[in-house]
Amino acid sequence: MSTAANLLSWIASANDHPDFPLQNLPLGIFSPQGQSPRGGVAIGERILDLKVACEAGLFEGEAKAAAEAASGDSLNAFFALGAPARRALRAALLELLGEGSPALDRMKALGEALLPAMHDCQLHLPARVGDYTDFYVGIHHANNVGKLFRPDNPLLPNYKYVPIGYHGRASTVCVSGTPVRRPVGQTLPPGQEVPSFGPSKRLDYELELGIWIGQGNKMGDSIAIGEASEHVAGFCLLNDWSARDVQAWEYQPLGPFLAKNFASTVSPWVVTAEALEPFRTAQPPRPAGDPQPLPYLLDAQDQAHGGFDIELEVLLLTAAMREQGLEPQRLALSNTQNMYWTVAQMVAHHSVGGCKLQPGDLFGSGTLSGPEPSQFGSLLESTFGGKQPLTLANGEQRTFLEDGDEVILRARCRREGYASIGFGECRGVLLPAKA
Amino acid sequence: MSTAANLLSWIASANDHPDFPLQNLPLGIFSPQGQSPRGGVAIGERILDLKVACEAGLFEGEAKAAAEAASGDSLNAFFALGAPARRALRAALLELLGEGSPALDRMKALGEALLPAMHDCQLHLPARVGDYTDFYVGIHHANNVGKLFRPDNPLLPNYKYVPIGYHGRASTVCVSGTPVRRPVGQTLPPGQEVPSFGPSKRLDYELELGIWIGQGNKMGDSIAIGEASEHVAGFCLLNDWSARDVQAWEYQPLGPFLAKNFASTVSPWVVTAEALEPFRTAQPPRPAGDPQPLPYLLDAQDQAHGGFDIELEVLLLTAAMREQGLEPQRLALSNTQNMYWTVAQMVAHHSVGGCKLQPGDLFGSGTLSGPEPSQFGSLLESTFGGKQPLTLANGEQRTFLEDGDEVILRARCRREGYASIGFGECRGVLLPAKA
Repeated sequence: MSTAANLLSWIASANDHPDFPLQNLPLGIFSPQGQSPRGGVAIGERILDLKVACEAGLFEGEAKAAAEAASGDSLNAFFALGAPARRALRAALLELLGEGSPALDRMKALGEALLPAMHDCQLHLPARVGDYTDFYVGIHHANNVGKLFRPDNPLLPNYKYVPIGYHGRASTVCVSGTPVRRPVGQTLPPGQEVPSFGPSKRLDYELELGIWIGQGNKMGDSIAIGEASEHVAGFCLLNDWSARDVQAWEYQPLGPFLAKNFASTVSPWVVTAEALEPFRTAQPPRPAGDPQPLPYLLDAQDQAHGGFDIELEVLLLTAAMREQGLEPQRLALSNTQNMYWTVAQMVAHHSVGGCKLQPGDLFGSGTLSGPEPSQFGSLLESTFGGKQPLTLANGEQRTFLEDGDEVILRARCRREGYASIGFGECRGVLLPAKA
Repeated sequence: MSTAANLLSWIASANDHPDFPLQNLPLGIFSPQGQSPRGGVAIGERILDLKVACEAGLFEGEAKAAAEAASGDSLNAFFALGAPARRALRAALLELLGEGSPALDRMKALGEALLPAMHDCQLHLPARVGDYTDFYVGIHHANNVGKLFRPDNPLLPNYKYVPIGYHGRASTVCVSGTPVRRPVGQTLPPGQEVPSFGPSKRLDYELELGIWIGQGNKMGDSIAIGEASEHVAGFCLLNDWSARDVQAWEYQPLGPFLAKNFASTVSPWVVTAEALEPFRTAQPPRPAGDPQPLPYLLDAQDQAHGGFDIELEVLLLTAAMREQGLEPQRLALSNTQNMYWTVAQMVAHHSVGGCKLQPGDLFGSGTLSGPEPSQFGSLLESTFGGKQPLTLANGEQRTFLEDGDEVILRARCRREGYASIGFGECRGVLLPAKA
């Protein structure tokens, strides 16, 4: 088992690493100091430089082709190769980076050039995003938000049949660490009939799972539910920044637009399906009486293994907390078990009418809140529409985000008998609106 | 004046050409027979091959840089150069292709290699579409459709303040001539509470103006209304195919998704602002009592010249008509004067919150219906929601599109004292749903 707890790496920092033990091996794009972007693999506190590894001849066969595709300045070509190539690369990496590596001497001789320290490297967006689609599969979020926007009609009749999604903006998907500027826009102040214009006053985060698409399909074709998982290249965290006041005024009848398109932040590492295998679950149970998915969304294997048990966390670090030397404070802890639809159902639905999915397309799950307030994945929910401020440990209060606030998403998988793995962080600090 | 009626070309087919006289000079991407895609300029029944023209040294200075940027397999690099480069190229083309061209002998010596016949060439999508945004600025369409979906509330309160738009699917923007497959999907039959799954039964076209974005802006910046026109690289026709039954069931609360993302067809030629200059108008007058645009959408120059007088036409060619040897039948004749918001207002609004616009991004205007039934730009409107079938000249009836129907969009500009120019065609034939 490539995910067993007892697998160790000869790179000491990988063993018991909270995010990147040998069992994880997520891929990303990074620049070593003073050098150009290239593909790499996170291992403990280091990154395996795939460009250097390829040049040193560390891979053979299908793994070599996969490593070469992943060694450029984006992972799109690697995603396009599909799941078998990814698995071949993983097998080779487990051998190279594991205890008793047959290439240990050659790798040690390459030193920092092959395995630079992660903190010396700059991390980039892992792929050029072709299209970005945001789903809405967090049913507790849909219920909570529905109550605020439509008190008498929170969950619309289509919700339990259709994996609801909408097209987002690809050009402003940015990597963790990119500062986000508070947007200006039109809003309708309460009780007014004429909109105001200015900086958003209700700026929010959204805690989401991100899904990177692999091979995809041609226009006019579709991806069957039974094959959908093979078209997923990997997973990340996604913060779908949202200007709630802009959203409330603009979103009818065609959906969110400027309220969401100023920034969406993703974590830099692409965690693979193979690394997540021990944390698979059945599709989370649905409330009694809910309808069966329509046949094109129903697959026995997906019902049995299409869910994930991934802890998702939002933390906040305010400007004052930074000055006071405080650690980020957790605002919510949720889980991917709150997804009403599986990732395979999202892929099958998206493509069923012939929409072309391409390597490097990005899906967001939608906000994954749990049923309890401590599990709410947005401030809109945690403050009940801005009506009940949160009081932070240092005495500060928040209804929505203030300038200088840094939002940090984390994800971790734990299971008895398996090494824990993590996603790394998805961070973004909020800059003041432009004067 | 580079647009005066009396300018003639030494290429005979250009003079009095309904679409592509010397005054137009639209750019596109094409493949000469057996050769790779490259940039070209439509002139009469021919295409000036920019790759061959560059290799022959026909350009100098800024025009040379522009022609080189436009000679690759997409126009993105050319769009990125911005308006001054585009104007320099136009000035050079007018001289090269006009009567008394100083390079006449060299060009004639190059013959078909420089100026292949358009009907021998394959036309491609002119640019890689980064993001595609569809607006909703046709106020008569918004009213007509609003009445069908929300009889008591056709035009929402935000319509006259916000240039409503939503993100569409970039991966399925395709060039004229690409067959479109009827999508399958979920729909809710009238009177039912459980959705059905199958081929869309209410497949429709939408008559839109397409807008190609030029230089664009960085994430977090915005484009002021006074500068917005400089960020438009050109114009085309756009058919935003729509599955109305899918749309009605899925679109709440986040907007159209599978109902629109299976295909959007554009015409291959990018008509420039310079060619359209004589057909500029003031922003079309708004109904008395309508609010002023907010200051970020208000610019004196745009108010005076931000409109266009472009005739827009939808034609239908059914399978039976093709067999009978009939010409396509006009279904509607409309005009860009039906835009409630100008193109500059769309650009300024889209970017005001910091959304990054990039060279090759595509906007659709939304369906540009006029107030009269003969001006309705979709079957949804022309058949009053499918309730009043259209009877065609050959006796066939249509509520929505049938397999084998070909939808053809055309656009033409006419003004006394100026040469007429056209956009060429935007065609697509509907294939049956996949078995």
